[in-house]
Amino acid sequence: MKVNVNFERLKKNFLFEKVSSKVSDFAKRNPSKKIYNMGIGDVTKPLAKTIIKGLNDAVLEMSEEETFKGYGPYRGYSFLINNIIKEFKEEGISLEESEIFISDGAKSDCANILNLFEKNQKVLIPNPVYPAYEDTNIIYGNQIVYANATHENNFLAMPDENQDVDLIYICSPNNPTGATYNKDQLKIWVDYAISKDAVIIFDSVYKNFIEDSTLPKSIYEIEDAKKCAIEIYSFSKSAGFTGTRCGYTIIPKELVRNGSCLKDLWFRRQTASFNGVAYIIQKGAEAIFTRQGQEQIKENLNYYKENAKIICNTLNEMNVFYTGGKNSPYIWFKCFNSLGSWELFDLMLEKLQIVGTPGEGFGENGKNFFRLTAFGKKEDTLKAMELIKNFF
Amino acid sequence: MKVNVNFERLKKNFLFEKVSSKVSDFAKRNPSKKIYNMGIGDVTKPLAKTIIKGLNDAVLEMSEEETFKGYGPYRGYSFLINNIIKEFKEEGISLEESEIFISDGAKSDCANILNLFEKNQKVLIPNPVYPAYEDTNIIYGNQIVYANATHENNFLAMPDENQDVDLIYICSPNNPTGATYNKDQLKIWVDYAISKDAVIIFDSVYKNFIEDSTLPKSIYEIEDAKKCAIEIYSFSKSAGFTGTRCGYTIIPKELVRNGSCLKDLWFRRQTASFNGVAYIIQKGAEAIFTRQGQEQIKENLNYYKENAKIICNTLNEMNVFYTGGKNSPYIWFKCFNSLGSWELFDLMLEKLQIVGTPGEGFGENGKNFFRLTAFGKKEDTLKAMELIKNFF
Repeated sequence: MKVNVNFERLKKNFLFEKVSSKVSDFAKRNPSKKIYNMGIGDVTKPLAKTIIKGLNDAVLEMSEEETFKGYGPYRGYSFLINNIIKEFKEEGISLEESEIFISDGAKSDCANILNLFEKNQKVLIPNPVYPAYEDTNIIYGNQIVYANATHENNFLAMPDENQDVDLIYICSPNNPTGATYNKDQLKIWVDYAISKDAVIIFDSVYKNFIEDSTLPKSIYEIEDAKKCAIEIYSFSKSAGFTGTRCGYTIIPKELVRNGSCLKDLWFRRQTASFNGVAYIIQKGAEAIFTRQGQEQIKENLNYYKENAKIICNTLNEMNVFYTGGKNSPYIWFKCFNSLGSWELFDLMLEKLQIVGTPGEGFGENGKNFFRLTAFGKKEDTLKAMELIKNFF
Repeated sequence: MKVNVNFERLKKNFLFEKVSSKVSDFAKRNPSKKIYNMGIGDVTKPLAKTIIKGLNDAVLEMSEEETFKGYGPYRGYSFLINNIIKEFKEEGISLEESEIFISDGAKSDCANILNLFEKNQKVLIPNPVYPAYEDTNIIYGNQIVYANATHENNFLAMPDENQDVDLIYICSPNNPTGATYNKDQLKIWVDYAISKDAVIIFDSVYKNFIEDSTLPKSIYEIEDAKKCAIEIYSFSKSAGFTGTRCGYTIIPKELVRNGSCLKDLWFRRQTASFNGVAYIIQKGAEAIFTRQGQEQIKENLNYYKENAKIICNTLNEMNVFYTGGKNSPYIWFKCFNSLGSWELFDLMLEKLQIVGTPGEGFGENGKNFFRLTAFGKKEDTLKAMELIKNFF
């Protein structure tokens, strides 16, 4: 038996696992100190009332023989899929039920989607970016090349026509930089993918933070994108589902490669490898799409957006370069005092008890940058910004 | 970009998807006819009261800022893991928290666990068996060899010393045959795996149906099994979680290959590819382990066991060879009138409106056998058996 040798190519720890180990170590040494956690992109507001009602109703159904639910449909319940279809339709994008797959959040599908492709594909990954893309591709034995996002291009990497690739990851609004592609830029990516016969994996989990109505929330707003792109979304950040786990993956019927409709292969993969998301959770997710649900999640989103403004205002005052904060819950700034990003992490943890995420954890291009999230409490965000202003 | 060519090697449809398509087609043609579904192994009794309370309490927690839960620990919550540790301890098996991984049910981990190994491994799969093992291994590009389970060996395949293999799947009590290995037989498998440097993937999801106390419920009851076996379990069949989705995977620290502790690789894989099971669902699963939870799920199990007896009694009266029914919710019998298993499926659906699962769907060796499940309602099981007795 041979162990997958690709594990040797991975960094020892997943980024957020390393951050949380360092924080718990500090907390053990300093049990009385309050820690301001602006590190992992985890939400803090409770689930909206309408979602709670959806969950409660579903729990009740599970308690009665007449309404109890066993195995659900492999691709998810129609009641949820049809809401997603309706939402896209309102944006002028038409989708069919067979193109949508309910998932337990973006992360699982981002990894498992690689089952669709041969090993040793050449994969283009932005640098910096959410580290799970790189880690999962390493485990699958793919070859990784980077699209450089830097201070110079405002952290919006563009394709290099001379570079042949098979798979392309795009996260817009980006994690960690908050930088968001406009339609013209995404069109360049779509044309590039088609010219290379590549598939784009488009991560749209932060789309609900977009305020500028000219910016695309879905890659399918771009002409021809259905021929080359898979879109992966999660309710984690929009509806506070980080601990509730639900999302969806879209594979358009126009996405055909080597004679195969990729949505059919994915359906086949899922029927053999997944038994769907809990009925209770899908009913909770359904409630997001009601009018009250939409109003209530908007309220929470506005709360986080307010935090983002507080952070941006502080950085503006301090004259520090940053991206994000607008159209994104993340603020990505140049490290104070020219520190390295892990140095700044340790300093801020030890001196100010503020936890952020070191840019280097997202790739080489982040080594002098730092990510803060807007998902905390308002009073904590205010206090943390005061501490930063006074210290640096 | 290259599509994974292994998809071409798969059967067109996943077995249960094919069965359910045929059934919905029949239902469309015969909207007024009552169908007795004894096909897919899906439970019908509602969740136990204590589990419902656990779910309700957790939903309430998600509604309040002070008790809201975002991302959980990657391997699952300690409150659930510690209950599993305690249950195993009562059976004389000691496990540590780092050896247990909470999952969304057995199916996902059964597939994704293949990430731990190189491609093109030689995988030994019982024939007949739950078809997801074969399908997922085909998708991953592994080579499959079969361990033949037949009428002659009472559907308990044993290893062939001359056969070198890398991975071995064992499901005991078996799906679909209900046949269950005793300790001596499992010891032979463990010794064989160690002699071949192979890893056993042991699927124990039906363990709660075991009534004969001499039969092992966990492979870790067998000496040296921790050195060679991963155990995968789901609450689906024991606690009615088929639509609620929770289970666990055990990788003992003694399971080391090529210098790597497989549990550490799996943890690394999961941190990059999975964000855990919903807090609400884990709280529901925790309730299974309370005294009341245990009593209530036992009541449901006894209900299904009673159905199994009803089916067995009918087959006994008809003098038909079968395995299972005892220690298992499945009854695996030789097709009436020497029919092929898909022929019997069609006949029973069209003439009696009874849905079973054709043995051939589980492998070549099942082509003259048929599976019925005990998960239906008692009155339906009685009625279906009467119909069968009268027709054949």
